[in-house]
Amino acid sequence: MLENIRVVLVNTSHPGNIGGAARAMKNMGLSRLVLVDPEEFPSGKAVARASGATDILDGAQVVATLEEALVGCSLVLGTSARDRRIPWPLLDPRESGTVCVEQIQLGGEVALVFGREYAGLTNDELQRCQFHVHIPSDPEFSSLNLAAAVQVLTYEVRMAWLAAQGRPSKVEKLEVTAMHDTQPVTADEMELYYRHLEETLVQIGFLDPAKPRHLMARLRRLYGRIAVSKLEMNILRGILTETQKTARGEPHKRRDQ
Amino acid sequence: MLENIRVVLVNTSHPGNIGGAARAMKNMGLSRLVLVDPEEFPSGKAVARASGATDILDGAQVVATLEEALVGCSLVLGTSARDRRIPWPLLDPRESGTVCVEQIQLGGEVALVFGREYAGLTNDELQRCQFHVHIPSDPEFSSLNLAAAVQVLTYEVRMAWLAAQGRPSKVEKLEVTAMHDTQPVTADEMELYYRHLEETLVQIGFLDPAKPRHLMARLRRLYGRIAVSKLEMNILRGILTETQKTARGEPHKRRDQ
Repeated sequence: MLENIRVVLVNTSHPGNIGGAARAMKNMGLSRLVLVDPEEFPSGKAVARASGATDILDGAQVVATLEEALVGCSLVLGTSARDRRIPWPLLDPRESGTVCVEQIQLGGEVALVFGREYAGLTNDELQRCQFHVHIPSDPEFSSLNLAAAVQVLTYEVRMAWLAAQGRPSKVEKLEVTAMHDTQPVTADEMELYYRHLEETLVQIGFLDPAKPRHLMARLRRLYGRIAVSKLEMNILRGILTETQKTARGEPHKRRDQ
Repeated sequence: MLENIRVVLVNTSHPGNIGGAARAMKNMGLSRLVLVDPEEFPSGKAVARASGATDILDGAQVVATLEEALVGCSLVLGTSARDRRIPWPLLDPRESGTVCVEQIQLGGEVALVFGREYAGLTNDELQRCQFHVHIPSDPEFSSLNLAAAVQVLTYEVRMAWLAAQGRPSKVEKLEVTAMHDTQPVTADEMELYYRHLEETLVQIGFLDPAKPRHLMARLRRLYGRIAVSKLEMNILRGILTETQKTARGEPHKRRDQ
């Protein structure tokens, strides 16, 4: 479905930026690149910066005018530095990602339009866009590299697209696999741990039962923040058991002995 | 306040990427760049790609090791592409932006760590990070350009920072709950703790230096999740010191010799 979102680069000066944009697109799962009157294309510099996204460059459509680039699009977003003479509906990159994905879910086609490295889009070009997108950069140093701007917008498209899948995103899946040894212990297991810890701290002379102060409360607050997994609890309990043996003067257990 | 977030680039091969990263940082209002053992720096290629962000390059700190780069940091995030053997707390870029801003609002310092262009961060380097960050790229073409990755992360930091303006900061909230002892420890203090912990675990016979397995990594992951306060660190170090005293009082032969 992401193939229905095209990236349109207008009158790009540096072919390296075309390559960088292609790489960013492919990283984010987009494939359709349209170049309006590029200064130098095809180019070895574009291939070098694309770093493997050459299929995007090979498939790029080169056209003479923005009008041609936008044929078939039901939604057009244009990147803009702020403060135009005519105020325009303005989105931030996150909102842009959302409207792009909503549009392709409706069966539409979307163009994300990026202007020249130094001069951006002309007023005429901006007026062909339903929405302007402003990346909230520092006003003192606001102009992003072209490929970096493509990276931010396509990243937000991907985030919105993953969120819209109704299934776990790649990140969520990774979190699930990361959880396999993080099954949390129960409150009663934590209580057993605190009892074991307290006993051990008394044995090594760190906790004086006659003057406990707030030590156990502070340790509860500390370990209570962690969401300790069952595997981690085994480690913590193992440390306490060995510490107790040491305190009793028993010989060390070595796993390989 | 954003000056308390540093970008750390480890062992970067291409100086152009250092320049691109500096530009992305400055666009997003960040200023502090730390380079760990860069292959070529200073470099004209970095200046060219920085496109005006030369103040960031001029102010960049060059250090020999990641450890030096992290001195003073209370929160360390490392970008990671791959599934690792030991799953680690994983954030997406948006969550990363949020936790970074929360941390600087608490008065902490944050490092965003980026690895080598081709090999990323080593397991040892990743284990110095409390959280790993994964940019949800297409699994078929997942490796972002280094400067593009810096762009995405710093963009999310800026979005979170802008969203936090005008909102009560965590510090104010904390004052309300009167948590007087939550000033977080720094990465270097955590390293000293891990060293002390490892030493103690060897002394009590829980950790076999010849067969360390993943024990220290698992403990780093556990304590790395807590955001240990300075007061809590005093307690944890005190426990280790008493455990060591107990171990030294043993009649049998010491195992750490």
